[in-house]
Amino acid sequence: MEGEPLSALCTPALVVDLDKVKRNAKRMIERFEKLGVQLRPHMKTHKTLECADIMTGGSRRCIVVSTLAEASFYANHGFDDILYAYSVPFDKVEHCAVLSERLELFQVLLDHPDALEQLKKRPLKDGRLWHVWLKLDCGNGRAGVLHSEPEAIRLAQAIAQAEGVNLTGVYAHCGNTYNCKGVEQIQAVAQETTSLTLQFVEKLKSFGITCKSSIGSTPSCSHPVKDMSQLSEVHPGNYVFYVWRMWLCCVLTRVIGHSPHRNQLLIDCGWTGISLDGVGKLPTGNAMIEGHPNLKLVSMTQEHGRVEPISGPLDYSNYPLGTLLTLIPYHSCAAAAMHPVYHVHSEGQLVGKWTPTRGW
Amino acid sequence: MEGEPLSALCTPALVVDLDKVKRNAKRMIERFEKLGVQLRPHMKTHKTLECADIMTGGSRRCIVVSTLAEASFYANHGFDDILYAYSVPFDKVEHCAVLSERLELFQVLLDHPDALEQLKKRPLKDGRLWHVWLKLDCGNGRAGVLHSEPEAIRLAQAIAQAEGVNLTGVYAHCGNTYNCKGVEQIQAVAQETTSLTLQFVEKLKSFGITCKSSIGSTPSCSHPVKDMSQLSEVHPGNYVFYVWRMWLCCVLTRVIGHSPHRNQLLIDCGWTGISLDGVGKLPTGNAMIEGHPNLKLVSMTQEHGRVEPISGPLDYSNYPLGTLLTLIPYHSCAAAAMHPVYHVHSEGQLVGKWTPTRGW
Repeated sequence: MEGEPLSALCTPALVVDLDKVKRNAKRMIERFEKLGVQLRPHMKTHKTLECADIMTGGSRRCIVVSTLAEASFYANHGFDDILYAYSVPFDKVEHCAVLSERLELFQVLLDHPDALEQLKKRPLKDGRLWHVWLKLDCGNGRAGVLHSEPEAIRLAQAIAQAEGVNLTGVYAHCGNTYNCKGVEQIQAVAQETTSLTLQFVEKLKSFGITCKSSIGSTPSCSHPVKDMSQLSEVHPGNYVFYVWRMWLCCVLTRVIGHSPHRNQLLIDCGWTGISLDGVGKLPTGNAMIEGHPNLKLVSMTQEHGRVEPISGPLDYSNYPLGTLLTLIPYHSCAAAAMHPVYHVHSEGQLVGKWTPTRGW
Repeated sequence: MEGEPLSALCTPALVVDLDKVKRNAKRMIERFEKLGVQLRPHMKTHKTLECADIMTGGSRRCIVVSTLAEASFYANHGFDDILYAYSVPFDKVEHCAVLSERLELFQVLLDHPDALEQLKKRPLKDGRLWHVWLKLDCGNGRAGVLHSEPEAIRLAQAIAQAEGVNLTGVYAHCGNTYNCKGVEQIQAVAQETTSLTLQFVEKLKSFGITCKSSIGSTPSCSHPVKDMSQLSEVHPGNYVFYVWRMWLCCVLTRVIGHSPHRNQLLIDCGWTGISLDGVGKLPTGNAMIEGHPNLKLVSMTQEHGRVEPISGPLDYSNYPLGTLLTLIPYHSCAAAAMHPVYHVHSEGQLVGKWTPTRGW
């Protein structure tokens, strides 16, 4: 398929704009080089080797992953300095230990004293240390011990003092920036997460404990506030496929049916092709249809999407069967997760395929 | 892992109850043997060889698929008499032709005259015929030409008269039975779909055209109405993983976090583990949690689920980190689609793994 136009693809197909991915990756690298902050890109959106190479500038060092399957995949392909940024699950402690003993640097994360006990029960060989980040909830409301809880400082102290364990840093995710409207709101959340994380690290210093700090999310790292230069690391990920109001990956689909009795088109992309993320969140349904602002993806089943005009009757002569349409997904991570392969193009010409890892 | 208990699995994990799958498959086979109707089971829910063997009683003949990837996968493993029950997509006509020339019997489906033209433009080698089902919309409201449209009869005639093409039958899907409350409603929809399909076939007879008839969906085929015995075929599929109010596949997950500041638990199953199908449709959120009717899966991100009590404060001592929970998905097809492997058990003891095919 290499050298052929996008229209040569069978649909549904997830396509990635290589030039934009490279440009976005370069910008993020340069932005944090200037700020003097270590960029640790997150792999969860794409889970491919090729994109990881682009995001690390070819170093294959200093990445974050969301699953142990990703960690193993990257470790097996020469990547190192991997942070498994997921409250260490008890069923996966042994596998984490093996990676910690095998790689130069494998790091885990936790937010509960029972998890620390699990690590202590499995000391690493050859005098190696568990490298542990404390996950802090600074308002994001998912994993993490709440920053203001006295328990948070106690847990950090316990990690720092535990035998065979090193407190590497304090880690906060500001996924709540995705709900923000505009740069000002994003920067307010980024500022709060940064301040709370840095204050926490300062408080630890007063107890004689020094460690790193990291915050992340694509919106906050696309519009960094000044104080972020005081962080040790940042860990955005989604930016390779998405920047605020810009999409680098989309799903190609074709018209496969006309339903004049319902004023609808059928397309060959159902929820297996783009996921159900975004239902009810966009005026155009689960996706936007590039170049057709009056079309709405009203519903999907496993292999079918129903499309209708936002207003007025559909002119079927504009959409003969076989018409190629481009869906811009509500959530690029969720759309990518449905595809066993991504088709990569440069200016509309296919240049290769990327195969993601899956599972846990 | 074989011989080990379910608790030996790392989570999230999709587990399938082999005994129940076999029992359901046997019941469906026997039910339609008694009625004298050919059962053509649908593969879309599981997409595995092992389950296809169970559903076909080992014959490896007479199946329906939803993607060409499934068709190729089954053809490559000795299956035949395959119906690709999807309005034949123009980008896949050549691939369909190759399968039609290679298999004893490969059947396609269409609902538009332009699709018929595509088939006529690609005559099959060695005097073979395109075997074509006409897709009829009998109220389901997805693919299909509306049963009452004069266009429907005209299209059937055109298929029957086209050179190199055989009108195999009339095919209606009654997915609208899934929205029914109770057997009475299901049977009303099944009766209507059956009657409209049989009337359509009768009308074709008056034009000198004879062909088969097929309707399907798990609810209608689990509670068949008497007239269904006059059909040539039925094509349910979901019944191997689900029967009305009974679940044969579920997702195992573990507690990985406590969030007392939000009265919530975190589990290691996000939307990558169970899909977003069902959001807002169950009082318990996107899934039911077996044995814990007071727990609700309130939200999910990529790798996390948030669980909270429907009422009252959470007693965390009942849910220590590492606690194994069983999620009963809202939609088994959607949950299965997220997993690269299914873990199969018999009475809670692991007996094997099934690997589905993916893509299109």
